[in-house]
Amino acid sequence: MSLLVVGSVAYDSVETPHDRRDDALGGSATFFSIAAALFHKPSLVAVVGDDFKSEDVDTLERAGVDMSGLERSAGGRTFRWGGRYSADMNNRDTLFTELNVFEAFKPKLSATHREASLVFLANIQPTLQLSVLEQVGCPRFVAADTMNLWIGGARPALLEVLSHVDALFVNDSEALELTGALTMVAAAAEIRAMGPELVIIKRGEHGALVFNGDDIFYVPAYPLEQVIDPTGAGDTFAGGFMGYLAETGDFTPENVRRAAVVGSLMASFCVEGFSVEGIARLTLDDVRRRYAAFLALTHIDALAL
Amino acid sequence: MSLLVVGSVAYDSVETPHDRRDDALGGSATFFSIAAALFHKPSLVAVVGDDFKSEDVDTLERAGVDMSGLERSAGGRTFRWGGRYSADMNNRDTLFTELNVFEAFKPKLSATHREASLVFLANIQPTLQLSVLEQVGCPRFVAADTMNLWIGGARPALLEVLSHVDALFVNDSEALELTGALTMVAAAAEIRAMGPELVIIKRGEHGALVFNGDDIFYVPAYPLEQVIDPTGAGDTFAGGFMGYLAETGDFTPENVRRAAVVGSLMASFCVEGFSVEGIARLTLDDVRRRYAAFLALTHIDALAL
Repeated sequence: MSLLVVGSVAYDSVETPHDRRDDALGGSATFFSIAAALFHKPSLVAVVGDDFKSEDVDTLERAGVDMSGLERSAGGRTFRWGGRYSADMNNRDTLFTELNVFEAFKPKLSATHREASLVFLANIQPTLQLSVLEQVGCPRFVAADTMNLWIGGARPALLEVLSHVDALFVNDSEALELTGALTMVAAAAEIRAMGPELVIIKRGEHGALVFNGDDIFYVPAYPLEQVIDPTGAGDTFAGGFMGYLAETGDFTPENVRRAAVVGSLMASFCVEGFSVEGIARLTLDDVRRRYAAFLALTHIDALAL
Repeated sequence: MSLLVVGSVAYDSVETPHDRRDDALGGSATFFSIAAALFHKPSLVAVVGDDFKSEDVDTLERAGVDMSGLERSAGGRTFRWGGRYSADMNNRDTLFTELNVFEAFKPKLSATHREASLVFLANIQPTLQLSVLEQVGCPRFVAADTMNLWIGGARPALLEVLSHVDALFVNDSEALELTGALTMVAAAAEIRAMGPELVIIKRGEHGALVFNGDDIFYVPAYPLEQVIDPTGAGDTFAGGFMGYLAETGDFTPENVRRAAVVGSLMASFCVEGFSVEGIARLTLDDVRRRYAAFLALTHIDALAL
């Protein structure tokens, strides 16, 4: 099944308690598509400036991403984001955001891209997400991500997006902000009433909760000895999830659970390196090995009472 | 196997965003022993004042707790704690702590209590935990809880306790504070080097991580629609865990995992009511039903790739 992602391709400047990188390859569509490509070739639609390096195009192409939808804005400068993480890596401050070419971005889908079966609307303005929805035909499965900026500042357009998508990826704090609910169970029920049948609440180092119709599933995060850079973990989760679904074409609750585990494991690889270093050279066997370790980590026998 | 807990019996005044209770039955030994008693009769050693109500003794006895070790300090007043929870219930401020009779508490174990097979040293001063350790014979399994107050202010005594116990229950932030580590995996390894073979890192609404020798196990928290009062959840977790181990007498890694799930589920019942209301009237069938729901919630099939 064909898989499309519309989002950002960016240069990130990241400070962690131990190290820093400037102008490293980043952006929601970048992390998503590199993670997805391990399972199923994704098509990326995004915009960059003249300054976007050919080695970064190479990194995406080598990972197996269809780059025909990458627009180059002549004379423009690629979107840039800078952030600094707290000592425990659970919080970050945005140091700067330069929209640059992203400010005037109007996603235009090719005839092929309009026929995508699975679509991921990465975290961009809800009005842009809506313009993508208007261009695609009849996708089998559409998922969206969003953030507090749009929950607070573009609520009507976001609610319109939600009424048209099958799935929402959202952080725990954003789920509470979106709904006013006090628990994840209550928030998920309210989000499902807004449209998406499937709600995936991401909780960073605590994993994710998957509300899939009547099926509720808890995915722990794979415990790591060291976290290098959390940037892109959420988009990588979504990429693993959607890439696995695109490859298997199986939307049963059991397989959606597997997809969520795959997403969580891809995120665990992501945070083990700066930028896309943790995921760009992975093999399917790496994922299979960590999946087996994950099964062992979470296995429980029936109660002996 | 006989089970002993030494800790506090208290009156708690709790404010949540929705409600409040004054002078409700609380204390680490209270929550622990009521939870444990559902599986195996525990003996409680603690001190209260003249003001401790007979109906609260009744609540503990009806739950199946051996109260022969409850000391009444003539003319004294029962330990009191007051706290206020944040809107999302994940943080709380201590409004007051009145040690009262607890200030001069010197646990004295009866001949029977000295023979306990399983011992839980609830969160009290490490020097008191050490005095209990000196009085018990050769217990099969000793677990301790602690808190930031002792990690910062009584570190040498706490390290002495750790060198003598089989298991430590500790919050995630406390595990980092105790070790200076940056991840739970690293913190657990350092704590295990201090003594306990088994380290249980509690993460509130995010569940717990169990490091049992080479066996690492992630226990999600059971997702709830509504949380009424988180007070006592950690002690209730430990009570369910130790009560289940005392009843089954099985310390294999598989059974320690079951015990951790039981502990997590008992904590989920605990937070559904104020004080001990969520656990005082539970039946084993309630636990069996939630355990089955938990298995369904966490079940994953092998990877289909």
